[in-house]
Amino acid sequence: MNGIQEKMQAHQDNLTKPKGSLGKLEDYAMKMALIQGTVPPKVEKKAVYVFAGDHGVVDEGVSLYPKEVTYQMMLNFLAGGAAINALARGTGWDVIAVDAGVAMDFPPAAMLPKEARFLDRKIGKGTRNFARENAMSDEELEKALEAGRELAVDAADNGYDLVAIGDMGIGNTTTAATLLVALGFKSDEIIDRGTGIDDATLERKRSVIVNAVADRGPFADARDALKKVGGFDLAMMAGLILGLKGRGIGCVIDGFPVSSAACAAWRMDSGVIDYLFAGHKSRVKGHAPVLAAMGLEPIVSMEMRLGEGTGAVTGGFMVELGVKAAREMASFEQMGVSKGSSDEKNF
Amino acid sequence: MNGIQEKMQAHQDNLTKPKGSLGKLEDYAMKMALIQGTVPPKVEKKAVYVFAGDHGVVDEGVSLYPKEVTYQMMLNFLAGGAAINALARGTGWDVIAVDAGVAMDFPPAAMLPKEARFLDRKIGKGTRNFARENAMSDEELEKALEAGRELAVDAADNGYDLVAIGDMGIGNTTTAATLLVALGFKSDEIIDRGTGIDDATLERKRSVIVNAVADRGPFADARDALKKVGGFDLAMMAGLILGLKGRGIGCVIDGFPVSSAACAAWRMDSGVIDYLFAGHKSRVKGHAPVLAAMGLEPIVSMEMRLGEGTGAVTGGFMVELGVKAAREMASFEQMGVSKGSSDEKNF
Repeated sequence: MNGIQEKMQAHQDNLTKPKGSLGKLEDYAMKMALIQGTVPPKVEKKAVYVFAGDHGVVDEGVSLYPKEVTYQMMLNFLAGGAAINALARGTGWDVIAVDAGVAMDFPPAAMLPKEARFLDRKIGKGTRNFARENAMSDEELEKALEAGRELAVDAADNGYDLVAIGDMGIGNTTTAATLLVALGFKSDEIIDRGTGIDDATLERKRSVIVNAVADRGPFADARDALKKVGGFDLAMMAGLILGLKGRGIGCVIDGFPVSSAACAAWRMDSGVIDYLFAGHKSRVKGHAPVLAAMGLEPIVSMEMRLGEGTGAVTGGFMVELGVKAAREMASFEQMGVSKGSSDEKNF
Repeated sequence: MNGIQEKMQAHQDNLTKPKGSLGKLEDYAMKMALIQGTVPPKVEKKAVYVFAGDHGVVDEGVSLYPKEVTYQMMLNFLAGGAAINALARGTGWDVIAVDAGVAMDFPPAAMLPKEARFLDRKIGKGTRNFARENAMSDEELEKALEAGRELAVDAADNGYDLVAIGDMGIGNTTTAATLLVALGFKSDEIIDRGTGIDDATLERKRSVIVNAVADRGPFADARDALKKVGGFDLAMMAGLILGLKGRGIGCVIDGFPVSSAACAAWRMDSGVIDYLFAGHKSRVKGHAPVLAAMGLEPIVSMEMRLGEGTGAVTGGFMVELGVKAAREMASFEQMGVSKGSSDEKNF
């Protein structure tokens, strides 16, 4: 890949701008060149896969929304009325809503609105409550990981250059926090109060998480943690991330839940980092330490905490902009522009 | 305007997301609602005005690029090969290249490429060298400010909801730094080494700036500073910013040179702040203190230092995204989504 790096650097340095003056946009274009093995790289088609799943741990009273919201919001995605639809339209991403394990049944596909593509990959009607028992069986975990890997094939077949991952699931932040503590993160760093949660709810959430890790552990590895305290959605995300390896596709992760899945995937194969981008830094407290552990720097920081892939498509769009600049700008020779005596001076 | 603020807040809080979860995107949409006086606001047409001018102070050897680059890069804008063209295409801004005072003559308009709109507003063939004499006359300053004000009318006539301002001019960072020191900023905070400048050049630049402020001062006010140590480009930008008042148009400023012009405009009328957005935080050292003085928080931080409006269109696009979310998202009632018992909890 060293040849690509040098070739891409030379390409960018010959465009009509002072060297390096597009800053991180040049870094993102470089990473895409290394991912695709081509100079210049391209971003022509993009999709955000939004994984929806329900979580048995919600029975412990850790969430202030009813479980039905997972199902309702999936219908909202399909009808095109959610935040992810507006932001994806504005930045050119296809929206693919994946039922990884929603508790309710969806109407037949023919009956659903078509503003987003719907994929039925339901592993089960929500995970089991990991405060009491393992979230899923070995078979369910394998099925979820495999479904994710198959989505990577789907992404390649559809010609996507960039894939974003989003989440929708009442209780998935509690699951993500538990997974991360199971992976060795400190609970104080990870468990978020949130502004609307009172002391009693926070204490309940914390004790659910800490007790679940104690009761379900020890964890042999990331796969074991995913099975015992993960979710169908998080496991399928991890499968997608792992499956994208070697396909020449960049992958943009969203906030806290998606980053927990990415962290599990990274523990299973550290090579995934070569094609991961962190779309944004969310307002959720535990997000920053997870990104830091993986050595990923968030692209934008907008104080968002919505999920659905909203941060991923917003930040991921910057990767496309960097690639566009690298592809579309003229060279000094083409334009007859003087290069100047220094590479770093502003024009 | 309080009615608008409350109406817009109620509008955003009723969309299918936890309250405030789109973070700064909601803030930008709110600001546009206040600017336009409508709920929800709209961003349908956007333009970046790139002001090009030459600077007599370049004769002091403060720049490492030859003056001809200003002219060459203007032709690059018109041919569509510059960074601003690629980024503006990618984010949907019209590019308008304004000759505010380029030293060379352009071919007749009919002979120029048409990838960007060209506006001949040449006040003179570059300013005079403010190391020796005032940069411009009273008449030239008035002409430049007035041309800028007329561009605000042009923007309104063309139906732009959002206007970005960019710069192109060899030596304009030295002019911007001098203007800011004349406005009272500390020279140590403002004068940037840049990576490519050696000690001798830095020392020359610093002494040119400090001596010019001593020799041309005292400065009665921002207008006086613009005349004595400003530029045709910076004065015209200030005129545009001032002229946008009350037109229902948001204005996104770029990096160091544009921000110096915005600061001068703000000193002339502090009300401009109500419709200004800071597109980005540039890598140029003096940029942050200028934004801080005006109380503007940069939208993105990409380590860019290119100018041309590249940071303004990149960050300004986030304003459009916030507005799109506010316009296009469904309400809880429309979608039959449960609101939950708390407004701040993540879904």
